[in-house]
Amino acid sequence: MTSRFLLTTLLAGAFATPAHADVLVDNFKGYTVGADGTVAQVGAMVLDDAGTIKAVYAPGQKPSKKGVRFHIDGKGRILLPGLIDAHLHVLSTGFAALTLDLSETTSLADALNKISAFAAEHPDRAWIIGRGWNQEKWKLGRFPTAAELDMIVPDRPVWLERVDGHAGWANTAALKAAGVTSSSQAPAGGSIDKDASGKPAGVLVDAAQDLVAKAVPPPSARDRDLALATAQRIFIRYGLTAVADMGSTIEDWQTFRRAGDANKLYVRIMSYAMGVDAMKLIGGPGPSPWLYADRLRLNGVKLYMDGALGSRGAWLKAPYADKPDTRGLPQLNQTQLGNLMSRAAMDNFQVAVHAIGDAGNGTLLGAIDDLSQTYKGDRRWRIEHAQVIDPADWPRMGRIAANGGIVASMQPVHQTSDRVMAEARLGPDRLRGAYAWKSLKGTGATLAFGSDAPVEKPDPWAGLAAAISREDENGLPPGGWQPQEKVDRATALAGYTSQAAYAGFAESRFGRLAPGLRADFIFVDTDPMSASPAEIRKTKVLETWVGGGKVWDAADPDAKGITSSETKPSKGR
Amino acid sequence: MTSRFLLTTLLAGAFATPAHADVLVDNFKGYTVGADGTVAQVGAMVLDDAGTIKAVYAPGQKPSKKGVRFHIDGKGRILLPGLIDAHLHVLSTGFAALTLDLSETTSLADALNKISAFAAEHPDRAWIIGRGWNQEKWKLGRFPTAAELDMIVPDRPVWLERVDGHAGWANTAALKAAGVTSSSQAPAGGSIDKDASGKPAGVLVDAAQDLVAKAVPPPSARDRDLALATAQRIFIRYGLTAVADMGSTIEDWQTFRRAGDANKLYVRIMSYAMGVDAMKLIGGPGPSPWLYADRLRLNGVKLYMDGALGSRGAWLKAPYADKPDTRGLPQLNQTQLGNLMSRAAMDNFQVAVHAIGDAGNGTLLGAIDDLSQTYKGDRRWRIEHAQVIDPADWPRMGRIAANGGIVASMQPVHQTSDRVMAEARLGPDRLRGAYAWKSLKGTGATLAFGSDAPVEKPDPWAGLAAAISREDENGLPPGGWQPQEKVDRATALAGYTSQAAYAGFAESRFGRLAPGLRADFIFVDTDPMSASPAEIRKTKVLETWVGGGKVWDAADPDAKGITSSETKPSKGR
Repeated sequence: MTSRFLLTTLLAGAFATPAHADVLVDNFKGYTVGADGTVAQVGAMVLDDAGTIKAVYAPGQKPSKKGVRFHIDGKGRILLPGLIDAHLHVLSTGFAALTLDLSETTSLADALNKISAFAAEHPDRAWIIGRGWNQEKWKLGRFPTAAELDMIVPDRPVWLERVDGHAGWANTAALKAAGVTSSSQAPAGGSIDKDASGKPAGVLVDAAQDLVAKAVPPPSARDRDLALATAQRIFIRYGLTAVADMGSTIEDWQTFRRAGDANKLYVRIMSYAMGVDAMKLIGGPGPSPWLYADRLRLNGVKLYMDGALGSRGAWLKAPYADKPDTRGLPQLNQTQLGNLMSRAAMDNFQVAVHAIGDAGNGTLLGAIDDLSQTYKGDRRWRIEHAQVIDPADWPRMGRIAANGGIVASMQPVHQTSDRVMAEARLGPDRLRGAYAWKSLKGTGATLAFGSDAPVEKPDPWAGLAAAISREDENGLPPGGWQPQEKVDRATALAGYTSQAAYAGFAESRFGRLAPGLRADFIFVDTDPMSASPAEIRKTKVLETWVGGGKVWDAADPDAKGITSSETKPSKGR
Repeated sequence: MTSRFLLTTLLAGAFATPAHADVLVDNFKGYTVGADGTVAQVGAMVLDDAGTIKAVYAPGQKPSKKGVRFHIDGKGRILLPGLIDAHLHVLSTGFAALTLDLSETTSLADALNKISAFAAEHPDRAWIIGRGWNQEKWKLGRFPTAAELDMIVPDRPVWLERVDGHAGWANTAALKAAGVTSSSQAPAGGSIDKDASGKPAGVLVDAAQDLVAKAVPPPSARDRDLALATAQRIFIRYGLTAVADMGSTIEDWQTFRRAGDANKLYVRIMSYAMGVDAMKLIGGPGPSPWLYADRLRLNGVKLYMDGALGSRGAWLKAPYADKPDTRGLPQLNQTQLGNLMSRAAMDNFQVAVHAIGDAGNGTLLGAIDDLSQTYKGDRRWRIEHAQVIDPADWPRMGRIAANGGIVASMQPVHQTSDRVMAEARLGPDRLRGAYAWKSLKGTGATLAFGSDAPVEKPDPWAGLAAAISREDENGLPPGGWQPQEKVDRATALAGYTSQAAYAGFAESRFGRLAPGLRADFIFVDTDPMSASPAEIRKTKVLETWVGGGKVWDAADPDAKGITSSETKPSKGR
């Protein structure tokens, strides 16, 4: 646990009589996922001084008051375990909140207006950085161009990431600053959109994005600290008490540690290093220990098998239905993938691989199958997104599940956002294997849910609603898309709690309300076990508690610099 | 303080009555440097549970026994504050100790025995690296062979450099790893020793050595962890309880943090990043906080103004006396130096610059003088080595000392090792400004002492002896070289304790025996305030204590994995 927190505890221990001062939490309607995956009701809890759950009581059971010195009155509200997002990008979420957001734009014109307004608001910024555009949503039928950006921002470089992070849109100043010209070659795994005359048109896809991205001045350490604080504030407002950071650089890790050292890490981060070199530098001979009272750990490594469906970077077994001349492409060949996975596995790092297309997922499952012969034991191989898997490959997934264990790390909201695009990309025959939550769970895989923020909002309530309904925020399509893949409420809640913890080797530390686990819990205004999907989407998080300390209170939304040492419940609250 | 250490404290607090359990240390003859730089005698100390000094008593004063539950009997021995080395290279010191030294071997059989013993001692070293063999001294009449090495180390690569560095001896595993085969061609200026059948026999001469040398893998994280543990073991045996690491890479820092996270950091490390990029990556927006109960901090940055005297890289105002065609050269021009120092100073990183020659030191003093106009306050600009400074520049040093503060970070043993070489390089007229400890202290500069290990042994006793005598280990020259620059015993002891702490902004945390400071102290067999320089050189360190915990005991030299949590004094000891 963090020094300052322990110090608090120590002083309590030293000057208080009796030595321990437990906390009773009662008068709430609580749910938790049990070790068996079913949902159980909880009526009261006793927490110890160190922020750990000592006892959990069913409704009607009488809690022991022995050693209890503090009381938290649930005021009859709904209480749940703190929610966990199994796949997002922590600093990017913070930076996204600090940069131009185009995710709500409905047309190219709308986007251009927002961009010019943002540029006017920030005359001091050398580069205009933004993200979230989606030409599909704009019904543009093509990529936007540099010329269109030049009309509104001719003087400064502009660099705008697509909603899925798999393409970037530059103006001429940015292309110039990056030295991208007609003669520029796209690197393997990427492409440069060109106009009729062969000039770069403005958009660069997948690996080619780096041609411009590397010309963007890197954020300073102060920028990173601000982004982390911003991201944590966003997470706790949604009721997230833990997240998996999918692709941590050494700079990201140093930012996490600065926050931990300053006792300002109040959302738990399970980190996956961006590639094997970062993994070796961050973790050294193996995964890090759990640091700062289980608030940070390097679990393993994040690798990329292929790209995304929207930008047609996802690697398919058969051509794209809406672009028959391409099947997308792998980011790594089979040998490279095997070597990287094996380098990680030999030192017991957990391996998490991004795979979207059915060819990407099939190849990855083959690689995992092979490696499982060498690297035995509890491995929990993670497939990030697992978006389109050929049903013919499901049995193999089941075989691995029964062996080293496999995690399907999926994002329910991607299904609702991608639906129309996915139908266009895949055509009708491949949809059975797309976003197939229930079927993948059926193979025996662990189903962990997340948001992929900042690609989507890190909103677990939208995710829970989508998971049980497969309807979007407008209730479309009624009854749900490919409804046979809906999951029940217990599975959905487990995907955001116990299973997301298991996916990060954290099930003995947090993710459920059970003795010995960290006291991470939330009070909300809606009962997710009985409310309609639409109501669940509107859930308001009233309080968020991490390690027995309150880090968010809707009644005091502007509380600053919340840290674990400032969060001991005060007597009689 | 580290979680585990605090936990110990917490439990003591929780279960013991009364809450605190102080430790009385008495029955010793103790010395400490006072805040005023004079040496005071100490007769007893009381430490608290957290390893901090609560009270210090003069000889004859009666210590208060209130709250005391443990006792450490000094048995009449000499007690000193833990010594501090203000300039060394932590991991290089460890790696040097992990390199097999064959220079004393008298026969091939003797060498083979030493090699196999070394291999057995270091099962986790991927490669066995050594140096110093000489087949002439062995009267072998031929080069040794790979086959002979294979007999004792068949499983791992072995690479051993000849005493003169002009040949290398490999085993078959090393030749295989390097891809050296019968068909390998020796590069120009090199040759490959071959057997009758034309196979590489094991020895590669001159330029050919690189064929194997380049195959030696860079140190792994495990190698670094081992090097750190080895270095710490060496330091505590010499009575060093804190060191300044002059030039930490991010890999070094990660190694320090791994040790801290595992509660295996028991020598305090004041880290100076190797250059500005490493500084920004390690420290972020500024110096790190003190971590792990004051066991680790990134203080600032290490820069290089020039090279060394021996290789004539040191930058002199006038030509070298023994090579009039050169004056050496700067590593940075004045603009580069100013920019780097300014980048560090603007974020309050401490700046430590290597400067050896009088031109290098003069230029550096000029740069500091300029920067002091912009970056005010307590800066403690550090000059590392400050070996040859033109007396004409001494007043400027005094001006800076009175302003932002300046540290002359010097290595007494360099003077005794370099004496003959320095006279040749500098000629008679420049010696007055060479290794001028007393004069530089006279300007008002803070005089901090170190070893520059592994360049010299990290032996503070040799340093103390040299500092007060300017005689080498053979007592030469009698009366001392440039004896006017000897320092008194108080100044020498301060240079290895209070001033070395001040040089690292640590004077309020450790470096003296005083209330509120960490209880870092040593028991030794020799009284440095009365013994002769020769006797001081032979000082045996009997026990080393860091933060109130014993980390080294000459009576139990093989104690393994000493950590702060294992070092609480047991009752009645």
